[in-house]
Amino acid sequence: MSDSSKPESQSEKSGGKLWGGRFAEATDAAVEAFTESVSFDARLYEADITGSRAHARMLAAVDVLTDAEFEQIDAGLARIQQQIETGEFHWDATLEDVHMNIEARLTADIGDAGKKLHTGRSRNDQVATDLRWYVRSVVDEILDALKQFSDVLLDVAEREADTILPGFTHLQVAQPISFGHHMLAWREMLVRDQGRFTDARNRLNQMPLGSAALAGTTFPIDRSQTCAELGFDAPCGNSLDAVSDRDFVIETLAACSITMMHLSRFSEELILWASARYQFIELPDRFCTGSSIMPQKKNPDVAELVRGKTGRVFGDTFALLTLMKAQPLAYNRDNQEDKKPLFESLDTTLACLRLYAPMVAALEVKKDNCLQAAKEGFSTATDLADYLVRKGVPFRDAHEIVGRAVRAATEAHCGLEELPLEVLQSFSTEIAADVTEVLTVEGSVAARDHFGGTAPNQVRQAIHRARSE
Amino acid sequence: MSDSSKPESQSEKSGGKLWGGRFAEATDAAVEAFTESVSFDARLYEADITGSRAHARMLAAVDVLTDAEFEQIDAGLARIQQQIETGEFHWDATLEDVHMNIEARLTADIGDAGKKLHTGRSRNDQVATDLRWYVRSVVDEILDALKQFSDVLLDVAEREADTILPGFTHLQVAQPISFGHHMLAWREMLVRDQGRFTDARNRLNQMPLGSAALAGTTFPIDRSQTCAELGFDAPCGNSLDAVSDRDFVIETLAACSITMMHLSRFSEELILWASARYQFIELPDRFCTGSSIMPQKKNPDVAELVRGKTGRVFGDTFALLTLMKAQPLAYNRDNQEDKKPLFESLDTTLACLRLYAPMVAALEVKKDNCLQAAKEGFSTATDLADYLVRKGVPFRDAHEIVGRAVRAATEAHCGLEELPLEVLQSFSTEIAADVTEVLTVEGSVAARDHFGGTAPNQVRQAIHRARSE
Amino acid sequence: MSDSSKPESQSEKSGGKLWGGRFAEATDAAVEAFTESVSFDARLYEADITGSRAHARMLAAVDVLTDAEFEQIDAGLARIQQQIETGEFHWDATLEDVHMNIEARLTADIGDAGKKLHTGRSRNDQVATDLRWYVRSVVDEILDALKQFSDVLLDVAEREADTILPGFTHLQVAQPISFGHHMLAWREMLVRDQGRFTDARNRLNQMPLGSAALAGTTFPIDRSQTCAELGFDAPCGNSLDAVSDRDFVIETLAACSITMMHLSRFSEELILWASARYQFIELPDRFCTGSSIMPQKKNPDVAELVRGKTGRVFGDTFALLTLMKAQPLAYNRDNQEDKKPLFESLDTTLACLRLYAPMVAALEVKKDNCLQAAKEGFSTATDLADYLVRKGVPFRDAHEIVGRAVRAATEAHCGLEELPLEVLQSFSTEIAADVTEVLTVEGSVAARDHFGGTAPNQVRQAIHRARSE
Amino acid sequence: MSDSSKPESQSEKSGGKLWGGRFAEATDAAVEAFTESVSFDARLYEADITGSRAHARMLAAVDVLTDAEFEQIDAGLARIQQQIETGEFHWDATLEDVHMNIEARLTADIGDAGKKLHTGRSRNDQVATDLRWYVRSVVDEILDALKQFSDVLLDVAEREADTILPGFTHLQVAQPISFGHHMLAWREMLVRDQGRFTDARNRLNQMPLGSAALAGTTFPIDRSQTCAELGFDAPCGNSLDAVSDRDFVIETLAACSITMMHLSRFSEELILWASARYQFIELPDRFCTGSSIMPQKKNPDVAELVRGKTGRVFGDTFALLTLMKAQPLAYNRDNQEDKKPLFESLDTTLACLRLYAPMVAALEVKKDNCLQAAKEGFSTATDLADYLVRKGVPFRDAHEIVGRAVRAATEAHCGLEELPLEVLQSFSTEIAADVTEVLTVEGSVAARDHFGGTAPNQVRQAIHRARSE
Repeated sequence: MSDSSKPESQSEKSGGKLWGGRFAEATDAAVEAFTESVSFDARLYEADITGSRAHARMLAAVDVLTDAEFEQIDAGLARIQQQIETGEFHWDATLEDVHMNIEARLTADIGDAGKKLHTGRSRNDQVATDLRWYVRSVVDEILDALKQFSDVLLDVAEREADTILPGFTHLQVAQPISFGHHMLAWREMLVRDQGRFTDARNRLNQMPLGSAALAGTTFPIDRSQTCAELGFDAPCGNSLDAVSDRDFVIETLAACSITMMHLSRFSEELILWASARYQFIELPDRFCTGSSIMPQKKNPDVAELVRGKTGRVFGDTFALLTLMKAQPLAYNRDNQEDKKPLFESLDTTLACLRLYAPMVAALEVKKDNCLQAAKEGFSTATDLADYLVRKGVPFRDAHEIVGRAVRAATEAHCGLEELPLEVLQSFSTEIAADVTEVLTVEGSVAARDHFGGTAPNQVRQAIHRARSE
Repeated sequence: MSDSSKPESQSEKSGGKLWGGRFAEATDAAVEAFTESVSFDARLYEADITGSRAHARMLAAVDVLTDAEFEQIDAGLARIQQQIETGEFHWDATLEDVHMNIEARLTADIGDAGKKLHTGRSRNDQVATDLRWYVRSVVDEILDALKQFSDVLLDVAEREADTILPGFTHLQVAQPISFGHHMLAWREMLVRDQGRFTDARNRLNQMPLGSAALAGTTFPIDRSQTCAELGFDAPCGNSLDAVSDRDFVIETLAACSITMMHLSRFSEELILWASARYQFIELPDRFCTGSSIMPQKKNPDVAELVRGKTGRVFGDTFALLTLMKAQPLAYNRDNQEDKKPLFESLDTTLACLRLYAPMVAALEVKKDNCLQAAKEGFSTATDLADYLVRKGVPFRDAHEIVGRAVRAATEAHCGLEELPLEVLQSFSTEIAADVTEVLTVEGSVAARDHFGGTAPNQVRQAIHRARSE
Repeated sequence: MSDSSKPESQSEKSGGKLWGGRFAEATDAAVEAFTESVSFDARLYEADITGSRAHARMLAAVDVLTDAEFEQIDAGLARIQQQIETGEFHWDATLEDVHMNIEARLTADIGDAGKKLHTGRSRNDQVATDLRWYVRSVVDEILDALKQFSDVLLDVAEREADTILPGFTHLQVAQPISFGHHMLAWREMLVRDQGRFTDARNRLNQMPLGSAALAGTTFPIDRSQTCAELGFDAPCGNSLDAVSDRDFVIETLAACSITMMHLSRFSEELILWASARYQFIELPDRFCTGSSIMPQKKNPDVAELVRGKTGRVFGDTFALLTLMKAQPLAYNRDNQEDKKPLFESLDTTLACLRLYAPMVAALEVKKDNCLQAAKEGFSTATDLADYLVRKGVPFRDAHEIVGRAVRAATEAHCGLEELPLEVLQSFSTEIAADVTEVLTVEGSVAARDHFGGTAPNQVRQAIHRARSE
Repeated sequence: MSDSSKPESQSEKSGGKLWGGRFAEATDAAVEAFTESVSFDARLYEADITGSRAHARMLAAVDVLTDAEFEQIDAGLARIQQQIETGEFHWDATLEDVHMNIEARLTADIGDAGKKLHTGRSRNDQVATDLRWYVRSVVDEILDALKQFSDVLLDVAEREADTILPGFTHLQVAQPISFGHHMLAWREMLVRDQGRFTDARNRLNQMPLGSAALAGTTFPIDRSQTCAELGFDAPCGNSLDAVSDRDFVIETLAACSITMMHLSRFSEELILWASARYQFIELPDRFCTGSSIMPQKKNPDVAELVRGKTGRVFGDTFALLTLMKAQPLAYNRDNQEDKKPLFESLDTTLACLRLYAPMVAALEVKKDNCLQAAKEGFSTATDLADYLVRKGVPFRDAHEIVGRAVRAATEAHCGLEELPLEVLQSFSTEIAADVTEVLTVEGSVAARDHFGGTAPNQVRQAIHRARSE
């Protein structure tokens, strides 16, 4: 083919770009630096090469490539993957992105067969396929990390099922609870997180490949073959949508945001519990750092950084929503900006989960401090009201009576259980000597003995159910 | 019970609040106005009354209430619901919220039995239950609206399967497509939206009731009974989590955000297509408005407002993530602020979907303008490259050759199909007289005839599959 | 003028809309409900009427209106304002917005002169002018509220200048500080807030009126006259920008966001300080509420709600940025959606500031608890390191020495000041008997006696400087 | 000093950390990787070294250091800066951050004097000072870039003052305008941006140094000396606030967000104008890229990427607001997460401004297409209404009359100026032969001849005013 020499010389004008035929001047260097993505999309190399090999195999199966061409491409791509993984591959920013870097190298290595790889596809469906493949693999890692952290929480919950902690609402002491119950509350959040990531994974596992630029291709492609080879559940049903859709990125980021919100809440509690005024727990030194000026400081840095990183993941989610909001179909270059926020949030979520599991496993609970704190703040006042209800007082009246008893105890600087029986009886004649047992924190915890309640008995049942699932 | 008179006089001090027993001074009036929520949570009345009736029935079943007390409560609440629905109910902001308004009225109506309703529950589990009940019902309405709009898109797609439209990438003409195919791309988004709302609904359909303030209750409640009566799949497994969890709000808002993002994208296209430079469609006058100064204007206001409202829904989602991010367990008053963003976003999403369905159904497509535009911009250049590939030219060389042909046509101010055959052949000797048929837009569209492609044939198959589901 | 009857009958077709001439069918009722704004923009009535009166006076001055017409309009508008303020005005949603409601009424009241009011302007410049006028007035109220809260902080700082509080970093005890110093830290934030609102006010105080729809008008308007009458610093310099610009909304919302972030931080501290584990302060009962189930609870609801409302203001800011991001010039209907977020955030910021001033003024500081807490956590360890430095030990070595002393004290369960001198000296021979005075919290606070430091002496000087400004 | 050997061996236990004295085990390696910041804060090196040198000079001036010690430190730091700038410096992630890397190296180089550098300061005031210094310098670069882009817009406006463009509202043709006027609208936005960055710069230019950890220091520091040397306007007035404040980061990010929103709007217009349906402008090839599959494509990638990056800057702003929202005073480690969003947004804003200036300067305006488009869409309808008003018809009636004329022209598929005079007169007897001149687009533009209007005459005056400022 005598034409083949001309394109090369022509494409020189556009700086060697693979799309340079219709351009009269080369890309501005600052524009090249501004538009390149290989500095952050190189991490898609495995997805890209795996997808290209599947595409080439399919092209051979439908006779668009010869078997010999396919073999060359397949071996060439395998070699490139190896070079990337051993650090021998040279990434070139002037080649724009991971796709062009790999294709250009393939063509340099194997010649004309390399130039045929892009038949029947476009970067639009290629990158969308790569990205789904990649997100799927990281979501699997996140699901695994969620499971591991969940298991840690079950272990801590079991260990501390009988440990009594003050339960707070409005950061005021509310009612005594089981420390293990509190750990199970955290675990509930992680279980929902697993559900959300699983749903997102199911929804994203469809294959854009075959959509080409936006309308499909004129070649007789077999999408079911590539789909099966790449592990997708089905090919995407509409080519326009397939190349422009980034719902899966946003949904994944939303799931990351909620998970990080949970971790931020855990952080808030760990920071409080480890603080001087609480001292409910001790964090291992290896998870803390010190101060450059104050020699005594031991700071819960991991928890603070997790809390701090959370806002960023939220910001990433909103960056993507905003990015997509005003785009007409189909692909627009705006979409290139989906990767940095996505990669950052996936990395952050995974790293935080992987640090929290061992850190929480290593928490030392200061049981005496927890118990002491649970006894403050009239934490059994509700039990007294319930006691009155069982004696026939309507709940609202019982609530009012106990409220007045609390005021009296506050003024006397003592606990409800320290008020003399006569004083208690001055608020309600229904109060009898048996009231003392409802005023203990142990009795209060044990009495909430129903599905979902804080009684150690229920905590153990919940752990058992969780482990049986 | 002789005590009962005292509480009343006592609670006067705290302005008649049902929790006033331990307070020495009444709530500041500005504080009352600042903290009240009845002005926006009154819409939960049906959820609240339904939940209270189920709670009372259960309390009777476990002998915490007598049957007579239950009957009084049940009838009293039914009466209150009727009064609310006929506008006879007086909402009182000094009673804080929907729960206290209804309970106070019930007690005023039926006396002591009313004071017993709150036995074994707290506003914390009550509001969480009400909110899930309410969100569930609105999500069902949204699912229905999504379905209806989806069906409209199928109809328009069928009607316009053969209509040719320029497909754009980067807002530049890319390749000709079927107008019906474009409508199906929109529909794909709605199908994913249905999936997300369905998943969110499944995950939220667990019942907090029975978690009481945070730790469960000392009464022998039967959560499976209330759960069944209220249509929840299961009681929430952990009381601390149940009263503090707002994941379901955030997940629902995230689903609303993605749906609104889709509608905003549709809006962007409708505004473009209806604009003077495009004139691909005509919007019915009844969906447009005019200008106060320019007599000729007919503006696509609905589409613009949908686009404008989208940012607000994003902001609502962000507000909730931020709201929850730093809260230690369990309930904090911050959570009261979940309602306004939630209600607003649900209302907005539903209203926008319900307007879009009839507006899109009534679009008039200006087929001639669409076809003419599809012929511009060398939209069949890829077809020419594919033609060369079929003649044995490697794709990258074919791309380069066509790029040069496009430059020649640009300079000659004509389309590719208008270049003389000799000129085309000067770029590649592989080009023969049969090239003309690949350069027509009709041929281009028909040739993308595979699953997910834009060929009218495929569009009809996709519609058929969608209708069979 | 014989034409005048026709338009009326014509406009019937479009439901009486003032722009209905070119429309063939009436607006859909659901569209009317969706697009109306009078339900939330009615609050602009004063701005709108004031602006219209200035516009009419100017039109008369340049002879576009006769003096008689102006008098009719001016009196008519004054009457309408009075009716609105006394609640006699009937707002009609089918008339879309505040502008059309007022103009329609004016024309109904005074006839043809009313139809001339809109000469040389458009709703685009009208609403932009109204909105700037309105924002300016609310910003003035916010500035006033910031000033009042600042003054409260100065008073509390003065009262508590000598009160010792533990200063925290990482929520760990760091160094003892003056409670007054802490209040002045809060005040610094408010001072910056005043600066931001003042800058925003200066930048927004330019007048769009005269920009008409987007390009200016063909009438010989005198913008300097309306500008002076409406108190703007200058007319906007470019008509296209003037009608489409909403920078002033975003900048104001960004200022609200930062102010609310500050209030949220104050809230976080108040909630901590009022909690059972801290008990540094007591909040007045009138700023707290109770629990429906737990009779003992006294919750810091105002602080929690302020914290909760903060996310919403952030969301509003985000909504506006997103709203504007993809709009081509000039006015698009999306902009109508600027009002709800703006009004909500202005209302919220103002209400929160106005509640915080009296609440903080009424804080009761529990000095003994603060002092006791300041003595915990080795808060004077830095003082010991500084002592060693003054004896010639390089700071890094001194830091290391004190770190080891802290470990010894931790293991001995005592404070640094309780370690026997010999033990201290085992860590450094530079330690002598005079070390005791640097280990007291009072000494530590007093020693930080430089500009910006926490010494009570400096706190008083800072208060004096602030009051002299 | 015999103690000095011990700390070293001790600090081994905590992995050589400069704060390791009180720690019993070394930091976990994953924690070290999670908490390090030197990978992104190394860019603060110049600020850090400049600040340290000023701090050391001041310590010598107040006799905390000897002159010899100061000379050693000063020379040592100068050497380190040189090594960093020549790439010889080895950054070590186990040393956490830029501060510790530099200090550790200094001590390794010069011994005990290096250990004295940190006397009287903390990383808390050090990093806050570094960050303000750095932000100040980048804001100055942004201000310069804004100015340059503004000047480009003046030039283009001057060149295209007489070019007629359709002005759009709602993306519908509204009125003809001057292309230069449109460029000046863009410039107005940049002028406000300059104002916001200038205000932010003024507010941030205060010096935290001297605040130490949170409370100030016991050394007799002279903050006015360091302040003057570092170019700050004043020392921060409150030590607690100074170390915890990140308002300046948020305010700068908010200014970046608004600037990026403007650039995104410009992008939207450039993309539209360059699109096949508009063809108002041609973007130089060097600012565009092509397609991997479609040989004919020339895509406005720079504009799309700017639009795409905008959401990210919004996200960064909200990340910071969320980060700060719930932090009690004073410094918390969350704050470390301020840097990545800040640096990214500063980089993005600067890069986008620097690309837009040359790209807009190189725009080729296709005047014929612009003019032709301006004649469509009845763009002079308002002029006709104004004409009627000048003949005595009330504006509202004139609006109605013209609306009907537009309908007639629409039905006749012609422009208003093409309707026979008799037909026009059938709508109003006031219309005479002189109407033709008000119906030309040139006449329409020229007639808007007042301050801020679109008449070329006004455009030139506005350019003149801008250049005289």
